Amino acid sequence: MKRVNIGLLGLGNIGSGTYRILELNRSHIEQTTGLDIRIKKILEIDTECDRGFTVAPGVFTQDAEDIFSDPGIDVVIELLGGIEPATSFMLEAMKAGKSVVTANKAAIAENYELLTKTAAKSGVLLRFEASVGGGIPLIGAITEHLCANEFSEILGILNGTTNYILTKMDEDGRAYEDVLAEAQALGFAEADPTADVEGHDACNKLSILMSLVFGKRVRPEDIPTTGISNITKQDIADAAADGCVIKLIASAFRTEDGVECLVQPTWLNKEHPLAGVKNEFNALFITGNAVDDLMFYGKGAGPYPTASAVLGDVIAIVKNL
Amino acid sequence: MKRVNIGLLGLGNIGSGTYRILELNRSHIEQTTGLDIRIKKILEIDTECDRGFTVAPGVFTQDAEDIFSDPGIDVVIELLGGIEPATSFMLEAMKAGKSVVTANKAAIAENYELLTKTAAKSGVLLRFEASVGGGIPLIGAITEHLCANEFSEILGILNGTTNYILTKMDEDGRAYEDVLAEAQALGFAEADPTADVEGHDACNKLSILMSLVFGKRVRPEDIPTTGISNITKQDIADAAADGCVIKLIASAFRTEDGVECLVQPTWLNKEHPLAGVKNEFNALFITGNAVDDLMFYGKGAGPYPTASAVLGDVIAIVKNL
Repeated sequence: MKRVNIGLLGLGNIGSGTYRILELNRSHIEQTTGLDIRIKKILEIDTECDRGFTVAPGVFTQDAEDIFSDPGIDVVIELLGGIEPATSFMLEAMKAGKSVVTANKAAIAENYELLTKTAAKSGVLLRFEASVGGGIPLIGAITEHLCANEFSEILGILNGTTNYILTKMDEDGRAYEDVLAEAQALGFAEADPTADVEGHDACNKLSILMSLVFGKRVRPEDIPTTGISNITKQDIADAAADGCVIKLIASAFRTEDGVECLVQPTWLNKEHPLAGVKNEFNALFITGNAVDDLMFYGKGAGPYPTASAVLGDVIAIVKNL
Repeated sequence: MKRVNIGLLGLGNIGSGTYRILELNRSHIEQTTGLDIRIKKILEIDTECDRGFTVAPGVFTQDAEDIFSDPGIDVVIELLGGIEPATSFMLEAMKAGKSVVTANKAAIAENYELLTKTAAKSGVLLRFEASVGGGIPLIGAITEHLCANEFSEILGILNGTTNYILTKMDEDGRAYEDVLAEAQALGFAEADPTADVEGHDACNKLSILMSLVFGKRVRPEDIPTTGISNITKQDIADAAADGCVIKLIASAFRTEDGVECLVQPTWLNKEHPLAGVKNEFNALFITGNAVDDLMFYGKGAGPYPTASAVLGDVIAIVKNL
């Protein structure tokens, strides 16, 4: 059994989910991977909150330096969210020789070159499977198992909140504002839903996919992005009358001049595999010149699906180092 | 650039597809992986057939020993199909220190322990992504990126021929025999369709998944298997009247006593993600205790999708050795 010590940045919703899944599946992970993964230190201000589990004394710290300077910590998991201080912490961790796993699409999309180059220069690994598609193992599939393909096109439903709203508008004939209010009440949409409904979240994820699928860096602000806040009941009805549904699609495709990409509400024929992706589910439809059409479907957010991807990345890092 | 020399067993339909994709995507593979993959020797009797490309002099051999005893060959790709001599060749190759990639579901399902144990004992890697789901990277996803999950259930459409037949019966209201004859004429079904239509092919693939997903070896002959040859137009109509489609489903699920598995024609509600998997496409729906529901969808057969998986395995082996 090989011991792996983790420094965890953030014990909020996602961090707590990761902690719980690691405990729940500890014996399974030990048996299948031979790894004894332990969370050695946690950067978190709120040490009193009832998360349903008890953190051992001495594990919490309020100083990130405690984690980066600990020679016993192998991998840092960043689950703070937001661009800063997450980016600075990831850079510090890597410069200190720690490999990093993150679920942070905003930080990766904003600082892709800086983060990936720092990983390479520091001789550590940086993985971010959970940043696009949550628990769906699409980054690993694209960059590893499908790497013999040249890709021509991707079409993604990459934001669960907007897909939930569009699904309910379509199935129940309700207005955008009604469904958004319900989604907020149910906790599927945030109090300030801008990042989701205006397409910024999907745009960040598409920016990351552009680098991985097409090897082309496109900054989020350079991706033409339209959200769903102007979609009306009439738009949905018009699409339905034509045998279509409206989905917020993040797309990219090769042209004669390179690769184009955009995020926008899109009419999809009901026969298209993405048309059946409902509620909070995410999916990526991708076309390679060997594999042809592929689709990956699953939960794009949530503490446990995110934990699945984060822990998969930790295990991959330890096996590859 | 790291040189990787391949010994290829079989230059039929799948072998030729792998050869062509390797040539077509050579510069892409070199750029993204840093590997210069060369097919050094090919075991093939038919050296005269016009495959649309020219094999250099001295590459063909009629003696497998030429490949196994060549110290310059790193990886053997087995694309002969069938249980023997494929199994014996894979064993010999591994004992000679070569890692092996295969697309051969029958040989892996029949000789799973012998092959995997021989790989471990010989200190080489054995990969068989293409054996289940063709180009869909599901074995890699399950065994690597999703390995922090305990799985409770899998539902697979794992045979393209039967899915094509059932799709046409459903959409066109035609009889089984009519659609089978058409599929044979189009090359989607073999002259002797038994292995497909009686469920044996799906059964072999389910046997492999049982080992990987549940860590439980179940021999193909121990999986209750029913094919689609008795499905009538009336059965399809009855299902449709109830909002369902009939699919040949390979399934496994945890029970109190362990894991049960079977292959049989199954009514699926039209809202189920697998119900929209049409024609020759394959899909696997899988539920993990962290990631929740996931679906992988793509082409389960054909020379190029198979080549995608085979070359992905070769690259993974070289990176992991």
